[in-house]
Amino acid sequence: MTTKLVLAVCATFLIQAAQALPFDPLPAKPPIPADNPQTPAKIELGKKLYFDPRISKQGTISCNSCHNVMLGGDDNRPNSIGHNGQRGARSAPTVWNSAFLSVQFWDGRAKSLEEQAKGPLTNPVEMAMDSQDVVLFRIRKVPGYLAEFKKVWPNIKTNEDITIDYVAKAIASYERTLIAGGSPYDQFLRGNKKALSAQAQAGMKLVQEVGCTSCHMGANFAGPPLPEGTGFYQKFPVYPGSEYDAKYDLLKDKGRFEVTKAEQEKNMWRVPTWRNIALTAPYFHNGSVKTLDEAVKVMAKTQLNKDLKPEEVSSIVSFLESLTGKFPEQKMPRLPETPGVSIVE
Amino acid sequence: MTTKLVLAVCATFLIQAAQALPFDPLPAKPPIPADNPQTPAKIELGKKLYFDPRISKQGTISCNSCHNVMLGGDDNRPNSIGHNGQRGARSAPTVWNSAFLSVQFWDGRAKSLEEQAKGPLTNPVEMAMDSQDVVLFRIRKVPGYLAEFKKVWPNIKTNEDITIDYVAKAIASYERTLIAGGSPYDQFLRGNKKALSAQAQAGMKLVQEVGCTSCHMGANFAGPPLPEGTGFYQKFPVYPGSEYDAKYDLLKDKGRFEVTKAEQEKNMWRVPTWRNIALTAPYFHNGSVKTLDEAVKVMAKTQLNKDLKPEEVSSIVSFLESLTGKFPEQKMPRLPETPGVSIVE
Repeated sequence: MTTKLVLAVCATFLIQAAQALPFDPLPAKPPIPADNPQTPAKIELGKKLYFDPRISKQGTISCNSCHNVMLGGDDNRPNSIGHNGQRGARSAPTVWNSAFLSVQFWDGRAKSLEEQAKGPLTNPVEMAMDSQDVVLFRIRKVPGYLAEFKKVWPNIKTNEDITIDYVAKAIASYERTLIAGGSPYDQFLRGNKKALSAQAQAGMKLVQEVGCTSCHMGANFAGPPLPEGTGFYQKFPVYPGSEYDAKYDLLKDKGRFEVTKAEQEKNMWRVPTWRNIALTAPYFHNGSVKTLDEAVKVMAKTQLNKDLKPEEVSSIVSFLESLTGKFPEQKMPRLPETPGVSIVE
Repeated sequence: MTTKLVLAVCATFLIQAAQALPFDPLPAKPPIPADNPQTPAKIELGKKLYFDPRISKQGTISCNSCHNVMLGGDDNRPNSIGHNGQRGARSAPTVWNSAFLSVQFWDGRAKSLEEQAKGPLTNPVEMAMDSQDVVLFRIRKVPGYLAEFKKVWPNIKTNEDITIDYVAKAIASYERTLIAGGSPYDQFLRGNKKALSAQAQAGMKLVQEVGCTSCHMGANFAGPPLPEGTGFYQKFPVYPGSEYDAKYDLLKDKGRFEVTKAEQEKNMWRVPTWRNIALTAPYFHNGSVKTLDEAVKVMAKTQLNKDLKPEEVSSIVSFLESLTGKFPEQKMPRLPETPGVSIVE
């Protein structure tokens, strides 16, 4: 799909959504791709791989290091710290509810969780594996993994049948279980009128009146439901020229332009979710804004050219805080072992 | 207790132990200090602190980073990687069954798990917090922690009542639940004669005949039971001069001498456990030996001046592999949150 067409589709959805008022509780299950159905064995294998630091160069970084499911699904840092203390340029997005996004990464460059999962493994400032083959080499060195892959995909007979696509599919399947619904806001929508404070309800009204929900719409507040691979993007800042451009270095990273090199995609970004946003400070693609209050103020100014009053900011923050979901209890995975040897150095 | 006295006590135990043949299954529970009784709320709080990366300088390293309970309780690396990619000089010991040790760290410089827990927090190449006060500052910034400390210690009323000793006590309490018994060896001792292969049984005989169990004795194979704070130490190498001194750089780190500066403690080390040793490669204080086979060969040569035949090494390794315990299932902790702000930078 060309960017032009995507934008046209988005615009249409946007108009529909603005008419329909998009307050929906989070569905219990996200979309599941036809070629990667959920199975308990696959989810369990994916969980092990998600927590396995041995698939990073020095054996110290797992998916969970930067997307910590014991917290808000990220690392609460401006940018993540990867191999040898190096820092990425962007802030780690939360893994919670990411299964509801139609594209992944801040710039939407991965069309699915499967594709996303492959990225950090070989990114030199993240897990820094020299190649996908080295990732597979490590996994094949862990005797217990083969049995688990076999259980999930009976066509896998030997270690050599394990491919990076199977690895990515298992990880994505686990991530599709990381759904945090049942927030006060979801309870409110389902009829419990006491679930939201008066202030949060005022905030819920304000985000519509001010215009925030013209982008942050849908059950995940990340845009209308779109087919996998079709992103919902927005320029940031829409209104450049405010003091925030310099203060928070908003224009340096060109967003989708860095991928597509298309002039019209300069500073275009995937619209991020609002769910669990209270847990994912600091804010924005570069993690430059430390508090949710300030993030709300900056967004109103840069995206809608509006100056919010302090009490409006407080109400909106109160509403955003009501979007923190209930995290399902999980058993800790036991990673298969390599008796008598180490596979990391 | 002076070192001399410790050594004398050790020698006495050693003789007793050698006479008594110390094959005991691992008790279900380790010693619990009188001033830190186990309670479910304390264990749960300790688990959260154990997994909380926010008590490291950059918010990226938790106790579990180097003592990974999803694996063998260590990080399978020669040495651990801490703050900003820095490396420690020694290999991370396993946390599993560490509650049975009478002193902690390779050099026994901490008399208890409580004391040990405080070490890495402010070690500049580990979690690198500037001071214990900064650790407390971070913990106090997490609103949910106060309620949990109050539940455990009713005398705690405000954030200021939380001290580093309470933090250490909670972490140590969690660590005392990390007991991995029920290994094939334990099953064998409890009467299931099929639990050990013939080769492992041959190895079990050999470790006595060769002399390994003159140090690696007791239920935890780390020495006789001694009061908390009294270490069981041994020189390594006992027989210097072999090719291994240079090959594995065995003499550089002076062990207890680095702490006490006492000449007679040069190259003295706490006798490490054999339990789960198959999961904690690479081996020795400096992690210089990559495989368990080689570790057995080197130990026989440097400690007992014996050259083992390959089939003897295999039998001993087979026995050591039978010491891998069953790890209790655990629920993943949910760490208390800091809504709207981040406390790490």
